[in-house]
Amino acid sequence: MGSTPVKRKSVLGRIRDSIDRIAAGTPARFGIYIFAGLIVLFTGLLSLPISTASGEVPPLADAVFTAVSVICVTGLSTVDMATYWSGFGHSVILLGVQIGGIGVLTVASILGLVISRKLGLRQRLLAASDANPLRIRKGVTEAQAVRLGETGSLLLTVAVSALVIEVAVALLLLPRILIEGVPLLDALYQSFYFSVMAFTNTGFLPTSEGIEPYASDIWFLGLIMVGVFLGAIGFPVIYALLRNHKEPRRWSLHVKLTLVTTLLLFVLGGFAFYLLELDNRDTFGALDPGQQILQALFLSMMTRSGGFATIDIAELNGSSLLVADMLMFIGGGSASTAGGIKVTTLAVLFLAAFAEARGNDEMESFERRVPSDVLRLGVSVVLWGATTVAAASIIILQISKAPLDHVLFDVISAFATSGLSTGLTAALPDSGQYVLAATMFMGRIGTVTLAAALAASQRRQLFRHAEERPIVG
Amino acid sequence: MGSTPVKRKSVLGRIRDSIDRIAAGTPARFGIYIFAGLIVLFTGLLSLPISTASGEVPPLADAVFTAVSVICVTGLSTVDMATYWSGFGHSVILLGVQIGGIGVLTVASILGLVISRKLGLRQRLLAASDANPLRIRKGVTEAQAVRLGETGSLLLTVAVSALVIEVAVALLLLPRILIEGVPLLDALYQSFYFSVMAFTNTGFLPTSEGIEPYASDIWFLGLIMVGVFLGAIGFPVIYALLRNHKEPRRWSLHVKLTLVTTLLLFVLGGFAFYLLELDNRDTFGALDPGQQILQALFLSMMTRSGGFATIDIAELNGSSLLVADMLMFIGGGSASTAGGIKVTTLAVLFLAAFAEARGNDEMESFERRVPSDVLRLGVSVVLWGATTVAAASIIILQISKAPLDHVLFDVISAFATSGLSTGLTAALPDSGQYVLAATMFMGRIGTVTLAAALAASQRRQLFRHAEERPIVG
Ligand SMILES: [K+]
Ligand SMILES: [K+]
Repeated sequence: MGSTPVKRKSVLGRIRDSIDRIAAGTPARFGIYIFAGLIVLFTGLLSLPISTASGEVPPLADAVFTAVSVICVTGLSTVDMATYWSGFGHSVILLGVQIGGIGVLTVASILGLVISRKLGLRQRLLAASDANPLRIRKGVTEAQAVRLGETGSLLLTVAVSALVIEVAVALLLLPRILIEGVPLLDALYQSFYFSVMAFTNTGFLPTSEGIEPYASDIWFLGLIMVGVFLGAIGFPVIYALLRNHKEPRRWSLHVKLTLVTTLLLFVLGGFAFYLLELDNRDTFGALDPGQQILQALFLSMMTRSGGFATIDIAELNGSSLLVADMLMFIGGGSASTAGGIKVTTLAVLFLAAFAEARGNDEMESFERRVPSDVLRLGVSVVLWGATTVAAASIIILQISKAPLDHVLFDVISAFATSGLSTGLTAALPDSGQYVLAATMFMGRIGTVTLAAALAASQRRQLFRHAEERPIVG
Repeated sequence: MGSTPVKRKSVLGRIRDSIDRIAAGTPARFGIYIFAGLIVLFTGLLSLPISTASGEVPPLADAVFTAVSVICVTGLSTVDMATYWSGFGHSVILLGVQIGGIGVLTVASILGLVISRKLGLRQRLLAASDANPLRIRKGVTEAQAVRLGETGSLLLTVAVSALVIEVAVALLLLPRILIEGVPLLDALYQSFYFSVMAFTNTGFLPTSEGIEPYASDIWFLGLIMVGVFLGAIGFPVIYALLRNHKEPRRWSLHVKLTLVTTLLLFVLGGFAFYLLELDNRDTFGALDPGQQILQALFLSMMTRSGGFATIDIAELNGSSLLVADMLMFIGGGSASTAGGIKVTTLAVLFLAAFAEARGNDEMESFERRVPSDVLRLGVSVVLWGATTVAAASIIILQISKAPLDHVLFDVISAFATSGLSTGLTAALPDSGQYVLAATMFMGRIGTVTLAAALAASQRRQLFRHAEERPIVG
């Protein structure tokens, strides 16, 4: 870099370079700044009188909560989203969800590159890290540093992929919405709205009826599930599927772990909901078996963190709520529009337990060794998640004195940006809504950037202490 | 062993040797057999007509539940313990709690020896493991194997230490009970009963009034807390304190981690309960500040897993119940009469997160390195605990349709053998009580033996796979 003479750069080039420096120096902080800035901007936009249907300035708590919910693609709301906002307001929301969704995809992908340099996106990095496994360990060395300017193409690829998927799902939704008798222009708008809300894992609804007219339609629900699934598995996986869909052998460990864990959670979750709601006539217990299975699977996929609901969440059995809590907490794939601690984090914890059970010194999966610092990272993310959820739940329980099942559900929904709600969120006082907004931010930005911040930190150890093992368990 | 001529052994010696072989071969299964056998025996004893006050044979569910609760020193009950059982029944319970408490101490200590060979009890093992840190890793080699016959002295040491502590606490409780006007013989019985129930972390009560007459007495509550604390920190720590109480520098990492974490949880828990119950007139919110602090600290210590309560648990704020859930789930020290995942397990998880945050390759604490397989063991124990609690909660929620806060509290109380109850346990149908009994067994025996089973398993790895790191978080 220093040895070759450098041409005088354009202003744009220099701006790009300085962004590169900031991002490469403190990628985690960079991500947090971007999201905080976006939330301030969208709070401002939503606070404009033209954003509301009534033409009045919305209360600050509602504007802040909606902006956070939009940018974090959570889908929780303190107002009736369909009727509260004007056409302009809805455009702002749609734009914010796209930026939030794609932004998260991109930032997370970049952070993922920095952490793992293993997305299969950059062959150079992949080769570098494969050649010498020791060098994959933390810290961004000069030669391996991901230049964000380079990843302008990454942003473009992500944005184009996202738009292609969204448009495809929207076009497939369109005929079903037209059949319902919706005029063409409205139907176009609604199908795109639904599709964007599905792929970005947000879950806001374009109309007051929402998903109600299609609540038993396997075509409509199936498409929403596909959109949510594609958004939730994460960009690295989508990319691998696009590039190597015929050669699963060439998929990276990350892709395999994400797909297997996601599908396992989807099926097990659906099975659990089916069994637990059989006796519940207020949800789908009284429907015919085909519908029961459809609804159970739909609910299971929505906890990944889709946020659409065909039933009244508050009517679910307590047992189902707890299952949903667990599924939401786990969330979706890394570098995805979904939230939670991420499916690979869960997978790594279980790989550690399997290694112990088999007496192996190494965590192994799909004929690959997983280095032990990945486990430490996973444990850190889980502790962060559990601490955030516990703190928010305790505060909101104390503020609202609401029942634990509803509080835990809405808090985990906020943390994991799931967006499903028992109705508690809208009923909370302002203080509680600010706590939930903070929980959304910490869940959305925290888990992604925490992993990056931890992985990027590096310290030379001057000496090793003597080894000693405490008893655990 | 093979080279020196062996004298013809006595029958007792041969029995001891065969027990040695079973125990050394499968120490974990050995522990499970002992406890299952004890539970069957005590179910039989409690099913005798002379065990009940009414002279009738108790229902099987109650006999099983009480036997499990006694042997696992849980303290949960499906009947009014003080009035339901006869004098003979109470003697059986007292004996069972002693065997359960001391048995767990011993079995856990032995398993701890097998796992860690680092209790500071056997200098030979300590020296052996210090000399070559690599050899500390899993698997019991011939030279290092702990001969259980040798640890007849361990059982004796544990039993004598336990009895000395129990008698000391009982003698200090006695004057306070006499002041209350209880006749001498009754007072002796009650003081010993309270003391045993405190040190074994059980929490059953000798009379219907229970702890009520002393519910605001700092002397009485303080002694109970001391008893619970000594039982909950575990025998290795007690032993270190007795032997080296003037030289904390010589304490093992395990001792230091256990004491620091226990004290931290005690103070933080007390502070949380104090703050959260300030507005609650149904517990201790209306008392004077000194009493508020005493009651908050008492409640905090009882979640370690004492099980005595001065207040109606069901009247606690939901926020306090959740704090108590977390504290109970963590539980006490390893090789102790307390339950839960154990304080050192939590400590190791946080050490991993700290190492990540500081960019260290190694987990470090008190100038010692903690090997990474301890983290895998810790993660396994936490997964086991979380899975057990989740499964039991889902089943009991489905059976009882009770509110989540009560279900979660009683299930975690059972898992962590805490014994505090919202009242749900006694109100459950038989099926639910059997689920809780299974939860107690899995929590009490599971966490202890799981760690041993995992640590003892060993597999030669024939080749190493290539390394690959999934993205987590
Ligand atoms: K969502
Ligand atoms: K107990």
